[in-house]
Amino acid sequence: MDFIEELKTLKTQVLISDSFKIPEHFDNIVISGMGGSGIVGKLFSELYHLKPVICLDDYDIPDFVGKNTVFIGISYSGNTEEAISCTKQALKKGAHVFVITSGGDLSKLSNERIVIPSGLQPRSAIGYMLMPLLNTFLNIDAEKRNSISNLINGVDLHHEEASQLGKEIANEKKIPVIYGFSPFRYVAYRWKTQFNENSKLMAINNYFPELNHNDTMSLRDTYLKETFFFITFGGSSGKISRRIDATEKVTSTTFHKVEPLGIDDIEKMFYLIHFGDYISLETAMIRNMDPRDVSSIEHLKSLIR
Amino acid sequence: MDFIEELKTLKTQVLISDSFKIPEHFDNIVISGMGGSGIVGKLFSELYHLKPVICLDDYDIPDFVGKNTVFIGISYSGNTEEAISCTKQALKKGAHVFVITSGGDLSKLSNERIVIPSGLQPRSAIGYMLMPLLNTFLNIDAEKRNSISNLINGVDLHHEEASQLGKEIANEKKIPVIYGFSPFRYVAYRWKTQFNENSKLMAINNYFPELNHNDTMSLRDTYLKETFFFITFGGSSGKISRRIDATEKVTSTTFHKVEPLGIDDIEKMFYLIHFGDYISLETAMIRNMDPRDVSSIEHLKSLIR
Repeated sequence: MDFIEELKTLKTQVLISDSFKIPEHFDNIVISGMGGSGIVGKLFSELYHLKPVICLDDYDIPDFVGKNTVFIGISYSGNTEEAISCTKQALKKGAHVFVITSGGDLSKLSNERIVIPSGLQPRSAIGYMLMPLLNTFLNIDAEKRNSISNLINGVDLHHEEASQLGKEIANEKKIPVIYGFSPFRYVAYRWKTQFNENSKLMAINNYFPELNHNDTMSLRDTYLKETFFFITFGGSSGKISRRIDATEKVTSTTFHKVEPLGIDDIEKMFYLIHFGDYISLETAMIRNMDPRDVSSIEHLKSLIR
Repeated sequence: MDFIEELKTLKTQVLISDSFKIPEHFDNIVISGMGGSGIVGKLFSELYHLKPVICLDDYDIPDFVGKNTVFIGISYSGNTEEAISCTKQALKKGAHVFVITSGGDLSKLSNERIVIPSGLQPRSAIGYMLMPLLNTFLNIDAEKRNSISNLINGVDLHHEEASQLGKEIANEKKIPVIYGFSPFRYVAYRWKTQFNENSKLMAINNYFPELNHNDTMSLRDTYLKETFFFITFGGSSGKISRRIDATEKVTSTTFHKVEPLGIDDIEKMFYLIHFGDYISLETAMIRNMDPRDVSSIEHLKSLIR
């Protein structure tokens, strides 16, 4: 399957209805995962606010994890050493342990598992991994899943605007700088990682309003400013929207603004994620880079084993 | 007071012994603050693991905040609108509310307050704001505070290595890329923000091992690679140390490695923070930038008021 066909599976991925049976009472949610798998916990943490959600992207769990913790280990391959290490530790501490994976060692660590189809790049399986969290904790129903799927289908059919941005970045040899804001902070991070992996390109992500307390001071006077290509999203609150406009004015910087379609934050999140997929794909194609190639990451894993 | 004199107050700042009387039982800690004030919550979150620590750098608090939450509002000026908004919301929800500030509206919101000396740039008051958290939750004693102070005094007296890095960055017109790892992820972020505010320079921060799942894929083939100046720290675990070496090898990239002095993570954290202060100051001086100037940030605040 070539990479664009992989991307186009997202509209069917978001239809999966699997969910976990979580305990009625718990104190916190801890989600472990790396890279293209770990980001689903981070995206979820911006949508769910009824309990503290702590996302781990390292080898160890914090001391507070215990019997009142809902712990979710996520690894598409099921063989990510950081996620396996954390999941084993959570089991020892007596947490309620759930896993999302296509197989591997992780699938053997808990009977409370959702097994998703294999054969994709982990970063292309974002729908398979994110929907179980939304189904479980946000009570997403079939109607909402269909609505998300239709929205994504629209991006597949009409991705000219995304491709145009990808062309500009590659043709002008720019480093993308993606400025998000809640609940799309990790959408900006997703875009950054897609530029890294698909386009083999350095990229930067940051978020409002925090960036107005530091980054903003650099934009007017930094050298190499022409190196960067600034992107932010529409769909923000009035407060953030005013900040975006004021930042452009104060720093004499122009931001490319991507306006998300969608009737709520979840839909806008998926729209923006998929829009970014097509930007990074276009940039990869113009650069003659294979978007599926992750040989450096595989090489590194072999060196540290 | 000129900026270097501000920096040199850090060794006396870390001697403050103030702490909060926190309730015996609580479920989570929520810390609100922006920029140079907010970072102390983030640094603390990497050192304390007995309860979930959620750091807020936006206007609103999550739904779970309630009577079992220890909430700490931090703003050096006491007039940061995001921190004031969150603190007011936390009071309404019945949280145990504490504040750290030099004055302003925030100081009026809770009697459980630590009032610190005014007159510094917020980012130069990091010791005044971080120590109360360490004193309260990590039981730091006078002996440890003296030890940190002596270490910082050593950086003040011998900052040639830091200044040399600052010179290289400015003279070669490079964008600093700082790669941290736990518990120094937010030290990397601190360096990035110091380059922004003091040197008026774009900068990038990221952390191991997460960056090995995405960023790594870009370092070999990105264009404009000569634009960037890569820095990481010593003092990591064996696992992270192996990752750092493997990343250099796989991507044909050289990282400048700063070796922290100090006998534990807290001391190493302060050493690295202060070392980074001197790098960003040197870069500012060579660029003829006033490190104290934050006029763009002030201009922006006036526009959105």
